[in-house]
Amino acid sequence: MAALRWGICSAGKVSHDFLVGLKALPETSHSILAVAARSLESAQAFATKHSIPQAYGSYEELAKDPQLDVIYIGTITPSHLSCAKMMVEAGKAVLCEKPLTMNSEETKQLIAFAREKNVFLMEAIWMRFFPAMFELRRLIASGSIGDINYVNVSFGFHPKLGGGATLDIGVYAINFTSMVFGGEKPEKIHAEGTLSDEGTDNLAAVTITYPGGRIAQLSISIKADLPCEAFVYGTKGQLKVPKWFWCPTKLETPEGTKEFPLPKPYQPTNFANSEGMCYEAEEVRRCLQEGKKESDIMTLNETQLVADIMDDIMKQLGVIYFK
Amino acid sequence: MAALRWGICSAGKVSHDFLVGLKALPETSHSILAVAARSLESAQAFATKHSIPQAYGSYEELAKDPQLDVIYIGTITPSHLSCAKMMVEAGKAVLCEKPLTMNSEETKQLIAFAREKNVFLMEAIWMRFFPAMFELRRLIASGSIGDINYVNVSFGFHPKLGGGATLDIGVYAINFTSMVFGGEKPEKIHAEGTLSDEGTDNLAAVTITYPGGRIAQLSISIKADLPCEAFVYGTKGQLKVPKWFWCPTKLETPEGTKEFPLPKPYQPTNFANSEGMCYEAEEVRRCLQEGKKESDIMTLNETQLVADIMDDIMKQLGVIYFK
Repeated sequence: MAALRWGICSAGKVSHDFLVGLKALPETSHSILAVAARSLESAQAFATKHSIPQAYGSYEELAKDPQLDVIYIGTITPSHLSCAKMMVEAGKAVLCEKPLTMNSEETKQLIAFAREKNVFLMEAIWMRFFPAMFELRRLIASGSIGDINYVNVSFGFHPKLGGGATLDIGVYAINFTSMVFGGEKPEKIHAEGTLSDEGTDNLAAVTITYPGGRIAQLSISIKADLPCEAFVYGTKGQLKVPKWFWCPTKLETPEGTKEFPLPKPYQPTNFANSEGMCYEAEEVRRCLQEGKKESDIMTLNETQLVADIMDDIMKQLGVIYFK
Repeated sequence: MAALRWGICSAGKVSHDFLVGLKALPETSHSILAVAARSLESAQAFATKHSIPQAYGSYEELAKDPQLDVIYIGTITPSHLSCAKMMVEAGKAVLCEKPLTMNSEETKQLIAFAREKNVFLMEAIWMRFFPAMFELRRLIASGSIGDINYVNVSFGFHPKLGGGATLDIGVYAINFTSMVFGGEKPEKIHAEGTLSDEGTDNLAAVTITYPGGRIAQLSISIKADLPCEAFVYGTKGQLKVPKWFWCPTKLETPEGTKEFPLPKPYQPTNFANSEGMCYEAEEVRRCLQEGKKESDIMTLNETQLVADIMDDIMKQLGVIYFK
């Protein structure tokens, strides 16, 4: 198969980081052909910085570019729905930054739309594609730590990143939990939290109970520094994904610590370990090569489940933009 | 004032560690005169090991020893109530290992009895008397980190210690929380957990809500290794008590990490940092010197409050020995 032909939607920080990830992969597998931003000027600056042949001053032009197979959407979350719909409508496969949309209802709409148009769609939960996470899933599936009955995840940063804790970073903690419990539907969700002056949540203390008394405890904060580790406890032992669990280079197992070094980034990144975005890009390529319309590692059903859980949490916290 | 004259009730591991703490203090302040165990043999072995002049084969003999001012009770938790009552009845001041008793009701009984007899009683929450904790309380009281609205504490060990998670180690996490919130009564407690085959809790995922939306999130496990750190977040900054938060030698503040070295233990201890039990022994001496019947740092009201919270948690978890 020829190289996958990428278009980049938005020239912001996360798109920069995604480019660093893409550039860690062979050009014969991934070619980056175009970038679009709201202003042509910033698209051009981004294109120059990353040697991208085409820059567009609108997302519409990107959608219409016939050279492109797949669009990476790195816009702000409130724009995900409209951008992703536009790209799907144009028949482009879509890798869209997390969270897929602002809420459960929008997520349902977008997934239905992609399925209707028979177009590939994946939420960019890059965490799931790290080699350490493949190993974690392998160890869990092999039964090496027995039956899983407790997960503890913390994601806490200070100063705040902006946005809401649950949507912005809780999405990782919930995804981690859901991944460990194989996408099962929780039995009960309990959340306490605090809101910022703008009415978004800046702290969520969440307990998720799964059938059979299996428990996940999540500490999500954009006002406090927390360990940023994830623990998976089973009846025969435990696994620990050390800081930062959402982009890990290590996995602590009963047999010792396993290391999974990242590729070398060709430019500095804005966020930690972003060169690891290469793994999700490879997953997109693998899926498209196989003619898949969604990933079986980050399924659309699980994206929906996590969106539903986030809605529930934000409702319990009284987040005002929840609808 | 002459040296405080200690009698040691039980020759077990924790009594050994307490002795190591006591021996870190000047003999002119603390003299150790007697030890009692269920068997004279083990009391004698313990006395020899620690150069204690008198060994008794029963707790009754210890209670009757007229030389003693104060008794340290290091027996197993189910014996605390009867031992402490016996010592109080005999007019001895009592420092009793945590948790003070098995449940809220027993705690109420014991506190009432000590008050009726006008005898000093303190639960041995040694954590509260570490220099790092004095500094933590000073920083909170000074307003240096603003209004406190989030506490996150984890205490997790594997393999299990035996006993129940909430009583055995949760008592520290709850005490830490209660200490930070100045002994306030929680508004709401939510606990999920798992039980061992014996019906005791081996995991408690607890969220405690205080008036005004202040939240504490506690992860308590005797089946999973957890970070064993405590975080206090305020509107102006945060404090972190690193591993192990219940016997800390460091405090991370917005101004940097402060170090609080322990005295050198004269013999190896069974549990981490037990030489720091010297601080609670000094508190007992200070209180008795001042004629106090309880500590104003570890008050009996707060011992009761914590016992009430533990009862609530264990009830929610369905612990069978809860009554």
